[in-house]
Amino acid sequence: MANLLGTDKVTQIGIVVKDIERTRSEWARLLGVDEPPIIQTAGFADAQTHYEGEPSEATAKLCFFQVGQVAIELIEPDGRPSSWQKHLNEYGDSVQHIAFETPSMKATRENLHGVGIPTNQFGEYTGGRYAYVDSQDKLGVHIELLQND
Amino acid sequence: MANLLGTDKVTQIGIVVKDIERTRSEWARLLGVDEPPIIQTAGFADAQTHYEGEPSEATAKLCFFQVGQVAIELIEPDGRPSSWQKHLNEYGDSVQHIAFETPSMKATRENLHGVGIPTNQFGEYTGGRYAYVDSQDKLGVHIELLQND
Repeated sequence: MANLLGTDKVTQIGIVVKDIERTRSEWARLLGVDEPPIIQTAGFADAQTHYEGEPSEATAKLCFFQVGQVAIELIEPDGRPSSWQKHLNEYGDSVQHIAFETPSMKATRENLHGVGIPTNQFGEYTGGRYAYVDSQDKLGVHIELLQND
Repeated sequence: MANLLGTDKVTQIGIVVKDIERTRSEWARLLGVDEPPIIQTAGFADAQTHYEGEPSEATAKLCFFQVGQVAIELIEPDGRPSSWQKHLNEYGDSVQHIAFETPSMKATRENLHGVGIPTNQFGEYTGGRYAYVDSQDKLGVHIELLQND
């Protein structure tokens, strides 16, 4: 049986939150570390974000806590329609995704589409690209695919 | 600054589900692996489960997919009051907790209680003990503490 992701290593746990400064402070206290910097994602011109098949100006504030092999990613979306905002609206502060680094974004997206798990958001970041697939119903969590150059 | 958990390594991502057989089948197909066995947790006599300060007969079916350092744990609670059932009732199929293996259950529970994160369920399993702390509001996810002998 083939691994449809092309990898079996989880690299991120992504948590959407209403107030990233507040949640960042709690995680830093828990882990006994300095607060990591907050990163503002780029708008459409740079990130080429697409959500539900349409170009999107949605952005988010992010920060990362490294816990062993895995990063805890906090995500505060900007209110515009996105996979992040939809999850926050429906669930409140909660885990939205777990991320896997895939060797081939195109093949993996096609593999997942073939088993009824379509992509619902994708975009670019410095050094790579990402896609969210809509697997909440089937897997109990969204999967994010990452491909770093 | 001290790490209040006594570790910074995530070991599990726990997903509560309504139908563990169904979700197990989807994960096995995604990862290209055989379906792992389903484990029935013990009742109060063996597990000494306590929920919200009271002894509890709540049990769950569990299964585990190992993905690198981390296990994806699927949890189907039995309908009785528990941290698992509360999350499933409120959120549907979704990530309920991430787990850390702590060197000292007692010290870690006290540390967390001291920063406003109380324990709301604990119990025993063969070879160790666990506790769930109620950190959904502060951290965006529950933390499970594990201590293996």
